Amino acid sequence: MHRPRRLPLLLILLGLLPAVARALLPPPRFPGPHARPRPRAGTGDGVGGGYEFETRYFRQRLDHFSFSGEEEFFQQRYLVGRAGAGGWAGPGGPIFFYCGNEGDIAWFAANSGLVWDAAPRFAALVVFAEHRYYGESMPFGSKDKAYNNSRSMAYLTAEQALADYAVLLTDLKRNLSSESSPVVLFGGSYGGMLAAWMRLKYPHIAVGALASSAPILQFEDIVPDTIFYDLVSNDFKRESLSCFQTIKDSWKELDEQGNGQDGLLKLSKTFHLCQTLNTTGALSDWLSSAYSYLAMVDYPMPSEFLMPLPANPIKEVCRNIDKQPEGSSILERIYAGVNIYYNYTGTVDCFDLDDDPHGMGGWDWQACTEMVMPMSSSEGLSMFLPDEFDYALYADDCVKNFGVRPRPRWISTEFGGHNISSVLEKFGSNIIFFNGLLDPWSGGGVLKNISESVVAIVAPLGAHHIDLRPATKEDPDWLVSLRESELEIISGWLSDHYGARGGALFQRATNKDSAAS
Amino acid sequence: MHRPRRLPLLLILLGLLPAVARALLPPPRFPGPHARPRPRAGTGDGVGGGYEFETRYFRQRLDHFSFSGEEEFFQQRYLVGRAGAGGWAGPGGPIFFYCGNEGDIAWFAANSGLVWDAAPRFAALVVFAEHRYYGESMPFGSKDKAYNNSRSMAYLTAEQALADYAVLLTDLKRNLSSESSPVVLFGGSYGGMLAAWMRLKYPHIAVGALASSAPILQFEDIVPDTIFYDLVSNDFKRESLSCFQTIKDSWKELDEQGNGQDGLLKLSKTFHLCQTLNTTGALSDWLSSAYSYLAMVDYPMPSEFLMPLPANPIKEVCRNIDKQPEGSSILERIYAGVNIYYNYTGTVDCFDLDDDPHGMGGWDWQACTEMVMPMSSSEGLSMFLPDEFDYALYADDCVKNFGVRPRPRWISTEFGGHNISSVLEKFGSNIIFFNGLLDPWSGGGVLKNISESVVAIVAPLGAHHIDLRPATKEDPDWLVSLRESELEIISGWLSDHYGARGGALFQRATNKDSAAS
Repeated sequence: MHRPRRLPLLLILLGLLPAVARALLPPPRFPGPHARPRPRAGTGDGVGGGYEFETRYFRQRLDHFSFSGEEEFFQQRYLVGRAGAGGWAGPGGPIFFYCGNEGDIAWFAANSGLVWDAAPRFAALVVFAEHRYYGESMPFGSKDKAYNNSRSMAYLTAEQALADYAVLLTDLKRNLSSESSPVVLFGGSYGGMLAAWMRLKYPHIAVGALASSAPILQFEDIVPDTIFYDLVSNDFKRESLSCFQTIKDSWKELDEQGNGQDGLLKLSKTFHLCQTLNTTGALSDWLSSAYSYLAMVDYPMPSEFLMPLPANPIKEVCRNIDKQPEGSSILERIYAGVNIYYNYTGTVDCFDLDDDPHGMGGWDWQACTEMVMPMSSSEGLSMFLPDEFDYALYADDCVKNFGVRPRPRWISTEFGGHNISSVLEKFGSNIIFFNGLLDPWSGGGVLKNISESVVAIVAPLGAHHIDLRPATKEDPDWLVSLRESELEIISGWLSDHYGARGGALFQRATNKDSAAS
Repeated sequence: MHRPRRLPLLLILLGLLPAVARALLPPPRFPGPHARPRPRAGTGDGVGGGYEFETRYFRQRLDHFSFSGEEEFFQQRYLVGRAGAGGWAGPGGPIFFYCGNEGDIAWFAANSGLVWDAAPRFAALVVFAEHRYYGESMPFGSKDKAYNNSRSMAYLTAEQALADYAVLLTDLKRNLSSESSPVVLFGGSYGGMLAAWMRLKYPHIAVGALASSAPILQFEDIVPDTIFYDLVSNDFKRESLSCFQTIKDSWKELDEQGNGQDGLLKLSKTFHLCQTLNTTGALSDWLSSAYSYLAMVDYPMPSEFLMPLPANPIKEVCRNIDKQPEGSSILERIYAGVNIYYNYTGTVDCFDLDDDPHGMGGWDWQACTEMVMPMSSSEGLSMFLPDEFDYALYADDCVKNFGVRPRPRWISTEFGGHNISSVLEKFGSNIIFFNGLLDPWSGGGVLKNISESVVAIVAPLGAHHIDLRPATKEDPDWLVSLRESELEIISGWLSDHYGARGGALFQRATNKDSAAS
């Protein structure tokens, strides 16, 4: 059984943790394939989530921004939708390009149904590009070599990834004799950040971007650093005040039990752990991970995005916490709650808190270089223990673990973020920022329209990039309708692009059945 | 005596040149300090062209786009205008930031009077930032070390330079407690390209850019590759058809004489060279350099930008070519002509064609990496011998000379250029593209308005970034008036920025005498 990697919150907080448990200090993570068993990585063609694609590889430059004379390349994987009945319009026709995130691209392809579902309506070619250093797109020939040390990892940055996409798209269009094709970018989470940044940095390469749940403001002091955990907490509080309070009370309880006679052994039994705990911190971490991920995937329909989960999983967790018989201890209630997350299928006999065999992860590296997203937990609003982001400690750990010092101000220097409304009000165009307010990452998202064409679509009941998820019969009306709004905006970008010239191509597309899915 | 470094045109053309003469294959150059004696590089404060500034240094990161863990820094020089009577408005007040080109920043500061002249009107702080690998801003501690080999030069790119400016500005504003300051970018020639690209890539750092004579379209096949030399030729033709024809006929004449008995000796005498020629190619090169530079600096007033020159120097050159007594040979006429360029002061006894002691130049490197600007000479319109750009030869020479292979498509992938009007029509804002049509670089410039705020200002009688030059009493009305138009547009950007908030600051500026200079 896999589990989401731990969140740093309590590691920083609990001074009791021995140094070894703090050896890695990963940031809050986006949900992704690192949090679940990996899909089989096929090297040939494939079907992901029912979508048929061809797997291709592109000889990609390792360092776009220097010219040392020692040219290094790697094979970047990308998936191209297979032309079917509703296939591509052909040269000049639209290209829907998904900006791969921090994981295997096949997984994102399988979980981004909107792109596939919408493509036939616009006769668009679907391309999912894998992010360097993830999945099969490994520099130096293998993951071991790519992840060997700080010198081999040096080129794992968002800027290099964006340049990859720019080069790949330019080459792809040329090879298809389709230089005039309008490209629409898609991306969710970190991929959504890349999509938005790419539209801003490479407007000549893409006509617009749907940036879903992209916390591009979660840097420096642009948004309050307590917002993430406040939002997680709020998701629990809105379901049940007593559930929220039980969780809030549980940390002290855990700590006390852990410090008692045979405390760690007892805790290990209460939580059905496969191995006896070394620290209560590891358990706290396991629990807080679950809460954070639950907030991200608090979808109103059953999902298997991270784990098999019921609809409205937080409601279910809280129901379990609250419904335990009178006299149940706080920790018994907590155990009953997280069971929904870690063992909804009921097939797990015991839980393994330390089952990540991969060691150094790509996102950990990114968080220790440029993706520095300060996270604190507030005294008042959070159900987590109060905690303040300690940059010095964070940076020291990065030096210790990866041999690099973060550049905490670099992302906002390179991509902006401060005063984004006034900066983009008269600059830039054609970006949709989608956010679901249940998603704790929405705290770092763009939640208000910036201009006529840099717009925010906000779903009060939505979680992490729910708009991108494959359509299901259980989709609530608001979701169907917001997806339709997004596609109408995209349709407008394409109309603008085709304008006078090439209108026929677009005609073909818009004359099709215009149902959203 | 210094001379402009040679243009590649005839080197490629004349197969007769021995390999050694083709060892360096520089591209057409922008005028710059490489073409004239360097200003004394002071390390303290200084006065350039009468403008008082303080010299400062910033600890700049060598590679912004990778994280190898081995952090390398260098001292980047920048000049800050000295606060005087018409000094900076203070925190929140405007910053006028000149994006340094391929040369000593003091020279650009001395030759960009518009920035200094306009600053008091807006109570703006003036900053001139030096481009990495030029002037004193040398990585690895010295020019010798920085220019040692392809590994040491690897980070001499436009992208790194832009990131330098972004980081420097961000830090500068923070240190001045002036984060809200609107930054207006200025730049001429390559510096103008940087200013335009910086506004496009870093809109959160600067509110607008005056990109003067910035040939951002002189890449790939965006503009015809014959346009540069056609424009040079046209500048001569418009002054005198017979002058144009004499030059056009001179190449064959040169070649024939050079191949005759004692030909090179005779040629050396005719042209008063200090040393006997080894090849006619070296002389052709020296001549074509003069014509190209003359076209760039064909100003309507006397100037000392590259060389001391009279007003309308091409008119003077052609007058000298045409007015020689009947029976004068073609080459005697040519000599009389170029004397205006190389010896207007009349102090030169003999000309040294090989007086560049610097060897490998920074711009040569840039031209061999990303700044690949294809240049041909057309059969019909050019006064130069017809010649077609041979990329394979160009690239091979780069490998030979610098150990790097160019990426001829990278600039347009990274910064765009194709279909710039449709790309920027609804994206981007606040850029002025100035071009003078006498300037051969105007062929690669933006000559038409793209949108309401991405505008072209075109001076039919202007040469290379004449708008930026210090105001003189001889300035024609059209020049005074176009500078005023530029400043009014910039004033609009600042008004937009201040809007409701901080209006008072701006009030102070606009209440001042609004004369342009």
